[in-house]
Amino acid sequence: MQATQVGHGLDALFKPRSIAIFGASDDVTKIGGRPLQFLQKYGYAGGIYPINRKGGLVQSLQAYASVAELPEVPELAVIAVPPAGVLDAVQDCAQRGVKAAVILSAGFSEMGEEGSRLQARIGEVARASGMRIVGPNCLGAIGVPDKSIATFSVALESSFPAAGSVGIVSQSGNLGSFTLRLAGERGLGVSRMLTTGNECDVDIADAIASLAADPGTSVILCCMETCRDGAKLMLAMAMAREAGKPLVVLKVGVSEAGSAAAASHTGALAGSDAVFDAVLRQGGALRVPSIELLLEVGHALSVAGPARVPGGHRVAVLTASGGFGVLLADAASAQGLALPKLAAQTQARIVAAVPFAAPSNPVDMTAQVSSRPEVLAQMLDAVARDDSCDALILQSANAFHVPRLRDVFLEALAQVRKDHPARLILLCARAPEDVRARLNAMGFPVVEGIDAACATVAALLRFGARDAARIAAPAIARAPLGAAAFATEASAKAVLAEAGLPVPREAVARSVDEALAAAREMGFPLVLKIVSPDIAHKTEVGGVFVGVRSEAQLREEYGQLLARVASKAPGARIAGVLVAQMVQGGVELILGARKDPVFGPMVMAGLGGIFAEIFKDVALQPAPVDEAQATAMLRSLKAFPLLDGARGRPKADVQAAARAIAALSRFAVRHADSVCEIDINPLVVLEQGRGAHALDALLVPEEHAVKGKQ
Amino acid sequence: MQATQVGHGLDALFKPRSIAIFGASDDVTKIGGRPLQFLQKYGYAGGIYPINRKGGLVQSLQAYASVAELPEVPELAVIAVPPAGVLDAVQDCAQRGVKAAVILSAGFSEMGEEGSRLQARIGEVARASGMRIVGPNCLGAIGVPDKSIATFSVALESSFPAAGSVGIVSQSGNLGSFTLRLAGERGLGVSRMLTTGNECDVDIADAIASLAADPGTSVILCCMETCRDGAKLMLAMAMAREAGKPLVVLKVGVSEAGSAAAASHTGALAGSDAVFDAVLRQGGALRVPSIELLLEVGHALSVAGPARVPGGHRVAVLTASGGFGVLLADAASAQGLALPKLAAQTQARIVAAVPFAAPSNPVDMTAQVSSRPEVLAQMLDAVARDDSCDALILQSANAFHVPRLRDVFLEALAQVRKDHPARLILLCARAPEDVRARLNAMGFPVVEGIDAACATVAALLRFGARDAARIAAPAIARAPLGAAAFATEASAKAVLAEAGLPVPREAVARSVDEALAAAREMGFPLVLKIVSPDIAHKTEVGGVFVGVRSEAQLREEYGQLLARVASKAPGARIAGVLVAQMVQGGVELILGARKDPVFGPMVMAGLGGIFAEIFKDVALQPAPVDEAQATAMLRSLKAFPLLDGARGRPKADVQAAARAIAALSRFAVRHADSVCEIDINPLVVLEQGRGAHALDALLVPEEHAVKGKQ
Repeated sequence: MQATQVGHGLDALFKPRSIAIFGASDDVTKIGGRPLQFLQKYGYAGGIYPINRKGGLVQSLQAYASVAELPEVPELAVIAVPPAGVLDAVQDCAQRGVKAAVILSAGFSEMGEEGSRLQARIGEVARASGMRIVGPNCLGAIGVPDKSIATFSVALESSFPAAGSVGIVSQSGNLGSFTLRLAGERGLGVSRMLTTGNECDVDIADAIASLAADPGTSVILCCMETCRDGAKLMLAMAMAREAGKPLVVLKVGVSEAGSAAAASHTGALAGSDAVFDAVLRQGGALRVPSIELLLEVGHALSVAGPARVPGGHRVAVLTASGGFGVLLADAASAQGLALPKLAAQTQARIVAAVPFAAPSNPVDMTAQVSSRPEVLAQMLDAVARDDSCDALILQSANAFHVPRLRDVFLEALAQVRKDHPARLILLCARAPEDVRARLNAMGFPVVEGIDAACATVAALLRFGARDAARIAAPAIARAPLGAAAFATEASAKAVLAEAGLPVPREAVARSVDEALAAAREMGFPLVLKIVSPDIAHKTEVGGVFVGVRSEAQLREEYGQLLARVASKAPGARIAGVLVAQMVQGGVELILGARKDPVFGPMVMAGLGGIFAEIFKDVALQPAPVDEAQATAMLRSLKAFPLLDGARGRPKADVQAAARAIAALSRFAVRHADSVCEIDINPLVVLEQGRGAHALDALLVPEEHAVKGKQ
Repeated sequence: MQATQVGHGLDALFKPRSIAIFGASDDVTKIGGRPLQFLQKYGYAGGIYPINRKGGLVQSLQAYASVAELPEVPELAVIAVPPAGVLDAVQDCAQRGVKAAVILSAGFSEMGEEGSRLQARIGEVARASGMRIVGPNCLGAIGVPDKSIATFSVALESSFPAAGSVGIVSQSGNLGSFTLRLAGERGLGVSRMLTTGNECDVDIADAIASLAADPGTSVILCCMETCRDGAKLMLAMAMAREAGKPLVVLKVGVSEAGSAAAASHTGALAGSDAVFDAVLRQGGALRVPSIELLLEVGHALSVAGPARVPGGHRVAVLTASGGFGVLLADAASAQGLALPKLAAQTQARIVAAVPFAAPSNPVDMTAQVSSRPEVLAQMLDAVARDDSCDALILQSANAFHVPRLRDVFLEALAQVRKDHPARLILLCARAPEDVRARLNAMGFPVVEGIDAACATVAALLRFGARDAARIAAPAIARAPLGAAAFATEASAKAVLAEAGLPVPREAVARSVDEALAAAREMGFPLVLKIVSPDIAHKTEVGGVFVGVRSEAQLREEYGQLLARVASKAPGARIAGVLVAQMVQGGVELILGARKDPVFGPMVMAGLGGIFAEIFKDVALQPAPVDEAQATAMLRSLKAFPLLDGARGRPKADVQAAARAIAALSRFAVRHADSVCEIDINPLVVLEQGRGAHALDALLVPEEHAVKGKQ
């Protein structure tokens, strides 16, 4: 798949000039009956061609025995025949020059090996012919403006989606259909929907890309279960980002219970969900935790517009009741939002408008706002002028249902919108549909629930804080790593040191004299470690001695170490003894790189020991990362205060640690074909300015990963 | 306040024979006009007596100049006059023998000192006369069955609450009123509402107690901002528990931003919210994080009934679509629920009903359930029989809106309810109001949102797991602690050791000879520590030496230690040198006890150092606790695996640690009048069977807390 081809050729799914339906049926409860019914019911204007061996009329339209017999080449084919007949239908379509086909039929890879083989052959038709194929086992596509309907979704039974600029893509047909229904209930107009099912050809990345390229779509909602091509997804996300279209993603199958997939190769600490999270973040997508929030955030983004969404985490809350202020402050805090004190000038303005108001944050405007719109406008204006907040939440439990108050609020909000066109202001309120529509038209998202309102604002501000100017990671040429590098800790550290990882001065001694010579060069204190390709756990065989402080002690310990190892690991090949400078003090990090089967090398950093083990306090990001990104990874750790001088500790050399992470990440990319896993444990980070040192390292070659890992 | 008096005399608020209204007005926008309007509009059957200096008719009723002139003694008085007139009105009521008064007027303690003084005098009238007083600055009370209305809440403008068994209590009038409105929208019938406002007499504990005692209330919803009397709240919670009535609490002002209150005296690690959390848990209340969940959980408990709610965390999920199964599994996992694999027999039954079903958990019943009710009934029956789950969630996005499917589902559910009357089964579904009512009548709570459904089930199962048989903590006689105990580490440890805390063998030596004598008795290795009432941080003045291994070393280090201290803390009084057995290895805990100003002594345990500091991984509980409770505290720590043999570590002596916590908690209660804070840092816990040792201890006397703490 060429990079430039993500999402190509999919317009035929959404605005075809004509549609053929294989397996068209008079029975509207059948999957071949429903698209036909919907197309006619909702007034699709192009040609509709039922295909049915029996010919005659199907739902009052002339049916044809095959696609070859059609009077014109249909741009889109909807295939709803039993699985055994699908390949033939697809081949006929390709031959006739159909641009795209949607296979609604099930019975393929989800049913086992035979189905998978059949599905693979269908995919080959797509690749050979250039005809794009959606499905099989999917709920197809809807192009709302053109009333193009290639689905049997029950969501269309009662009504056709209202037109709008929200696009919906989903791997699961049911979730796509449910999202469509929820969008309708939420008052969200839709541009396109595409569900990809088994993805024999068109996948979720194509689907995202096709909406990124669609001028009628401004916000993309995505239900994602899996990803089959990481690079393609990254490209699709980049397309959405470059088009300025927010991509909001609900990843399903997050939990162990929810995930049918086996644990990814990235190991226990960095499970596949953490990888997805890192990839989505890197791609500038906005991940949400529930389908409810998918809709709320989609609504808010489509109403406010992404240009109005700043980065940040500071909100101002305005209410007409202290109690609601407290509720909102609690809910906002739970979402990681801060409610900074408003500036003195702002508070003065608030009190000038209403002397009894609580002017801090949350602002209790008191019942005065119910009588005079100018008071509400003054309050909102005062807060909107204040730079100490990134967004405003105006709460009202009741006002929009009481005509007099409604008019007061609408008037004040219109004024504020005029004076502060770019300000992100969200209403946490209940309102009749028509009032909500008026508020939305002014660019104010309206969210009912208190928790939902705060979660939505938090998501928006997180989205606004994405690295808008993210430059594609520099291309790193792949290079194989020689087998020798994998042999021992010493060989691994040698290649890592060459790649820029800081490693203590060390040398492999093959005799006590070589060890003494090395010691004279390095100075004391020193550490001794056995070097053997056969010994994985050196301490368990007495193969490590820490704290050699003199030549005499070196002679003594060198011999004793070899003797211990010879007695505890009698068969092991001994390549020598590693003599290394001893590093004292500092904070221990663990660094790692693992190759995700879909997304490629990921780099990981965390504090050593129990932090990573018990608190799962690790940061993960697709490799490579630069020093700034590596620093951000470290800062994202809960335990970062330990590096940052918490409770009187010295500040650690975070910059040196970040340099090491960046170097490791570049190494992981460069050698991704031959190295599947890299562990540096520990990387000791000394005080600021004193550097960091990788004290131990392990490289796992690619073939080990394939056969060896659990 | 006598224990037996919590909530006494409040029936007059909810079912008075007659009501007098001070400040009754013809103007129904005034707070004195609205109760009068509501009482007449909704058909209160008792006597209604407007009180108004002018006399004449008020809203068509004969008004009286004073309560003295009324033809009968009203049982309830509603007071809606300006603050300056309230005290007189209250005194008149008390004199006439009114049972209860509700002061709706504002302008008291919320307005500063003068208001507080006036409010205090009103409270004195209550205590002197026995007349109960609600408010001031509150939204009063509603008794739904008797249509007794002592409120001006806007929630009553459009309609009177539907009668039911859910009681609502709130300190904030606005939140109480909002909860009432949400209950109506949620289809929840209400028994009583009471808002307590400034609480000059009736407080939130009284409110809870009055609903616990009300035969018409089965579930209590509570919005709590603060608590003025911890012991009274504990009693009220016990009353609810004993009456078998779930008490669901939304605590507002949780976050720093949301909390106007200053940090509590319990210190930074155990902030006031953590204390509330521990107190509510101890009292068997069910805390919820949002007002939305307050209603959902209230609905579920009132529909399912508390008897149907088991303890646990295991759910089975049944859907007709794999996609929803995954969404629910994710949402359930996020709520801490587990989805265990169903028993082989269960899975066999499921597959027998529908061969293509996914029989594990979540169960994908496939579209087959839409055609045959017996299939749905079989599936539900199979899962309901399976003991591996504590609750079932049946999801349906659509079925209850399609008449044919609705009937299939209702028939199947009726069957399952008949066969498994005690099973907790919650529906995650959308349904028309009448269908929802039918489902509710069968004992099935219906929740729309996926997250909300899982959060509700999780809350219910947490409620079911509360210690139903909790026995009141044994009474511990209070005793003062002599001032000498506070002097030094040694004196503190001595009294703690007497109380059962494990302390290493140690002795205070006043000379090197005494130290040598002690050493001979204890054996080596030893630790030396300076003993001085003037030195808080011993290590900072060189006052500690660890690892004395011989008599010669003891002589040497004894002298050097004294010399160091003399040079670094020249003025300090030296009481001697503590000679203590040295404890090696083990896991370090920190234990503490702090006195909360409202709830009294709380005991705290956590792992030492960074765990408590950075991860806030501490357990808190009202003292005293027994060994079982202390063990549960330790098990609740995220870092508990470190005590429990994680990653090849030896298992620690958890029992010894729990004994120490229990002993500390009893000590804290016994000496609560003289000790405000106890720190044991560290308590070293050795391997299983080898005990635990408090290596350092600090007692802070009560007076220090008052003047010294920030």
